[in-house]
Amino acid sequence: MAKVGVVLSGCGVYDGSEIHEAVITLLALDRAGAEAVCMAPNMEAAVVNHLSGEAAKGETRNVLIESARIARGKIRDIAEVQINEIDALIFPGGFGAAKNLCDFASQGSDCSAHPEVARLVRETIAAKKPLAAICIAPALISRILGDDHLAHKLTIGTDAGTADALVKMGTEHIDCPVSNFVVDPTNKLISTPAYMLAGSIGQAAEGIEKTVAALMEMI
Amino acid sequence: MAKVGVVLSGCGVYDGSEIHEAVITLLALDRAGAEAVCMAPNMEAAVVNHLSGEAAKGETRNVLIESARIARGKIRDIAEVQINEIDALIFPGGFGAAKNLCDFASQGSDCSAHPEVARLVRETIAAKKPLAAICIAPALISRILGDDHLAHKLTIGTDAGTADALVKMGTEHIDCPVSNFVVDPTNKLISTPAYMLAGSIGQAAEGIEKTVAALMEMI
Repeated sequence: MAKVGVVLSGCGVYDGSEIHEAVITLLALDRAGAEAVCMAPNMEAAVVNHLSGEAAKGETRNVLIESARIARGKIRDIAEVQINEIDALIFPGGFGAAKNLCDFASQGSDCSAHPEVARLVRETIAAKKPLAAICIAPALISRILGDDHLAHKLTIGTDAGTADALVKMGTEHIDCPVSNFVVDPTNKLISTPAYMLAGSIGQAAEGIEKTVAALMEMI
Repeated sequence: MAKVGVVLSGCGVYDGSEIHEAVITLLALDRAGAEAVCMAPNMEAAVVNHLSGEAAKGETRNVLIESARIARGKIRDIAEVQINEIDALIFPGGFGAAKNLCDFASQGSDCSAHPEVARLVRETIAAKKPLAAICIAPALISRILGDDHLAHKLTIGTDAGTADALVKMGTEHIDCPVSNFVVDPTNKLISTPAYMLAGSIGQAAEGIEKTVAALMEMI
């Protein structure tokens, strides 16, 4: 049974993992016969009230504990996960990928990645294991691979401003519709826009299901 | 386009809506061409740390605000939803259905339902619109319909103790495997065990997808 690391970043589109993207990923992995190894960084993060869309001032929550909601408690601190425990790695999106796994949401192309996230991404690339990034998560991968001066291809959909930031970090950006995904065969990278473009959960699911299928084929 | 009310109870299996069940429901509705009308009660509720599984002592969160995480912000206070706005009603499970929508988790067959939830369930039954309940949510429906002395059939799977509590409240309980669902055609009720029995997200999805399909056929 293939083991696929699923890196979560909290629980909710505005301050954590986009919940639909994360659950669709877990379902697609299960249906493909893979075991999901959920993980998240053990860190405090700012909270957004998802009803008002505004910051919950002064409130923080722990990313690992909140991510455990999506994983039904079965989750590990990413710092404890070694590359030999997984066959592939996948990142659902949500602002948590751009606020907690890195600070792309506030720093753009000057962002930095969480060190343990960066470590596992680098180990995945070095081991030639496939890696998929959904929605805004390719910005995180761009930062890490760009820092390593590794030529690579990713998509965040069609938003020119966001794509430009990835290009600045070192990515060759490929425009992609929500129903599809982009493959970088050299680096075994797969990316899909999902809620960067999706107008419905069904649209997001189409690209994510294709991405997981492509990831499983690469293992 | 059919409008289906989706009643959420927080965000996380131990103190709110079971996230997988809620997202699978939203995806199945979207793929069936229905519009989901997400709603939740505006109330404070106790919090469970989903990493440790233990109560977060002294901490409360607002059920409507936390449910908004699953609904990506598009959610309404159930008190403001009228029966003529929806064509059907569906309840994902999770302990929130048994702690927040009613207090079955602590009171068993002596439980009471949240008044606005009970109001909308009664209006749905009276309007002869279909209603589906997933996982532990049938306990809530049992309480409300049992109080009205309305003969009805539901399943919570195969757990004898839980089934007995439903029988005590007035339900005819039908044992059901995770891959299937139970229909009460007289009252237009559909129920499926999902994570009452599921060993994987794929198993939960199978019954929920069938339940949503049956609900759509009844509209």
